Amino acid sequence: MQKKAFVERLAQLRATAPLVHNITNYVVMNNTANALLAAGASPVMAHADEEVEEITQISSALVLNIGTLSPTWIEAMLKAGQQAKATQTPLILDPVGAGASQLRNTTCARILEVCPPDIIRGNASEIMALADTQIQTKGVDSTQESNEALATAIALAKQLNNVIVISGEVDYITDGTRVAALRHGSWLMAKITGMGCTATALIGAFAACTNDYYQAAVDAMLLMGVAGERAAHKAQGPGSFQMHFLDALHQINDLRHIEALKITSHNA
Amino acid sequence: MQKKAFVERLAQLRATAPLVHNITNYVVMNNTANALLAAGASPVMAHADEEVEEITQISSALVLNIGTLSPTWIEAMLKAGQQAKATQTPLILDPVGAGASQLRNTTCARILEVCPPDIIRGNASEIMALADTQIQTKGVDSTQESNEALATAIALAKQLNNVIVISGEVDYITDGTRVAALRHGSWLMAKITGMGCTATALIGAFAACTNDYYQAAVDAMLLMGVAGERAAHKAQGPGSFQMHFLDALHQINDLRHIEALKITSHNA
Amino acid sequence: MQKKAFVERLAQLRATAPLVHNITNYVVMNNTANALLAAGASPVMAHADEEVEEITQISSALVLNIGTLSPTWIEAMLKAGQQAKATQTPLILDPVGAGASQLRNTTCARILEVCPPDIIRGNASEIMALADTQIQTKGVDSTQESNEALATAIALAKQLNNVIVISGEVDYITDGTRVAALRHGSWLMAKITGMGCTATALIGAFAACTNDYYQAAVDAMLLMGVAGERAAHKAQGPGSFQMHFLDALHQINDLRHIEALKITSHNA
Repeated sequence: MQKKAFVERLAQLRATAPLVHNITNYVVMNNTANALLAAGASPVMAHADEEVEEITQISSALVLNIGTLSPTWIEAMLKAGQQAKATQTPLILDPVGAGASQLRNTTCARILEVCPPDIIRGNASEIMALADTQIQTKGVDSTQESNEALATAIALAKQLNNVIVISGEVDYITDGTRVAALRHGSWLMAKITGMGCTATALIGAFAACTNDYYQAAVDAMLLMGVAGERAAHKAQGPGSFQMHFLDALHQINDLRHIEALKITSHNA
Repeated sequence: MQKKAFVERLAQLRATAPLVHNITNYVVMNNTANALLAAGASPVMAHADEEVEEITQISSALVLNIGTLSPTWIEAMLKAGQQAKATQTPLILDPVGAGASQLRNTTCARILEVCPPDIIRGNASEIMALADTQIQTKGVDSTQESNEALATAIALAKQLNNVIVISGEVDYITDGTRVAALRHGSWLMAKITGMGCTATALIGAFAACTNDYYQAAVDAMLLMGVAGERAAHKAQGPGSFQMHFLDALHQINDLRHIEALKITSHNA
Repeated sequence: MQKKAFVERLAQLRATAPLVHNITNYVVMNNTANALLAAGASPVMAHADEEVEEITQISSALVLNIGTLSPTWIEAMLKAGQQAKATQTPLILDPVGAGASQLRNTTCARILEVCPPDIIRGNASEIMALADTQIQTKGVDSTQESNEALATAIALAKQLNNVIVISGEVDYITDGTRVAALRHGSWLMAKITGMGCTATALIGAFAACTNDYYQAAVDAMLLMGVAGERAAHKAQGPGSFQMHFLDALHQINDLRHIEALKITSHNA
């Protein structure tokens, strides 16, 4: 992957300013909206059963995030998801805390059945739980190294015919036949809530601009990683990291902003 | 309008520290509360049908914001709104994303009927949608220049006998007979979620301290604009802008903090 | 109390990284999660009736916060609370705005009856309201000096056989027989929303690591106060204070980070 092509696709995202519909958790809504704006997309949050279809219809991507579920929100997610499938709008799932409760597991299973996501991003535990390997997660944080879950992700991507992203110290993106490994980012990203959710939303923004969802996922994780590195360079702790991260998402628009890419690709 | 009079009214707001009841959207609740505190007001958020009347009753302004609606919240808004009308507590409406869904349109229509707002603030698209001119909005962001919607706003203010604020590159405030045009602020304000919602909440804070709602709206938009300019001067991007904006809301308390006012007034 | 012992308990908290289950209000969820992460704990937010028992079961503390109530959330709080009691998981209550509405008062009363909290933290008004002394609160901010409420807190702690924390310019912690008075912190902490809620969540994190809940409450309030002082030293206003506060929560890990302790203790 070339830096030049990435910067061009990022410029295209900004020229398009796609509307991304998020049905997400309460904790990260503000971060998610700000990250989408900083990256050049346009966020909309709406969860009412009475309006989700209309909102998805005018949007260019739908992001479902199960971080703080309740029954009415689940039904709205399924309704919006079916709308997205009907219009081939890219649908991205963030299975926050999958494995931590039956509600999260069954909700993921229902989403996979009713409106199969085009892309799923989680940490290793969440992807393992999704794959029904009976891994018990410790809340919403990863308890497994992401590389341990890679084989599972490849099998899952093949079965679901979609793209799976495992984020962690190394981020893996796979469509079941290809695997990209990204070694960008900072340990400070794990000290701020909602960085995973932000990544998922940015995947939605990139997926809104292309039919190549594998590429969209790689681009979004690269933008996250590079912005994380710029922010970590300036940060004194998680508070200032968060601020510099939003600034960086907005600033990156030039080859000079990106050091050598640390991406390797291989066949699955 | 004179700077000195504005600074005095801001000092009065801070001396009063009015309690502002917000029934608002999930995305901006934290921003809104912090902006009200920084400006010198006191925020309270409460949405339960079982308590909204009591909370409105002890508050000096009620701000309704339809950004992330659901049926129970709509009923609570109407109940709180009726309480506000019964006690002549100023009621301010932010029609976030009006035009984007039937739910948002019908909710606005119900609020206009059941508890007519004293002040409404939106972007041009939202005000146009409110005025039932069938403008299709692109999500929750403005797709029209605010000056194009001014004629509509004047007509709407006359019909509703209230104050309408259109925010944009130029902010317009009208009560149907007068129009004020403010040319303050920064393009960075559109790269942060919830700046419009913050403006609406600050209008509530100023309206809590006076019967002159037109003046209250002008004052709030001026405080937003001046704080935005101070923040933009120091910001490296949207993340640092957000931080400096809160600082600026808190710092502005003196004539020296405000450059020459860019406000023009004319008859409607 | 010695600085060295405090720093050791903070190090233990970080080594343990306890999972803290928060059923809290919408306004502060993001702050709370970030503060817990910065201090070294691991946050989880979950409010659905269908999953709260499972989430509490895998957690090491449960924090209930009534800031933005609705009926389904109240039932979930009670269910989670009963689960916490059944497994002797420390349960901490933040009675936000107690006294401002019947709903808040009756909810507190139900929690006290169904799942008596091990620790309660509020401002003076809230603690007075909890004690049913008919104090009318002004929204969610304190209208009384905390020392005026101390006698009430001591009596309440005796009656409930738990620990009560009153935060204010001076923070008081009592278990009914002992009283600690902390004189740390900054006036800027009252200009940011959710600092009280953050304190309550940090009490949960410390309580997850010890059976001595009185000590846990003192430690959490001390960490808040010291971090607040560090942040205030660098802040230009409430926006930058918030950022530096999160950085400080993360940075404090050494005796050199803490000036002389301003804690006095006496018998109740």
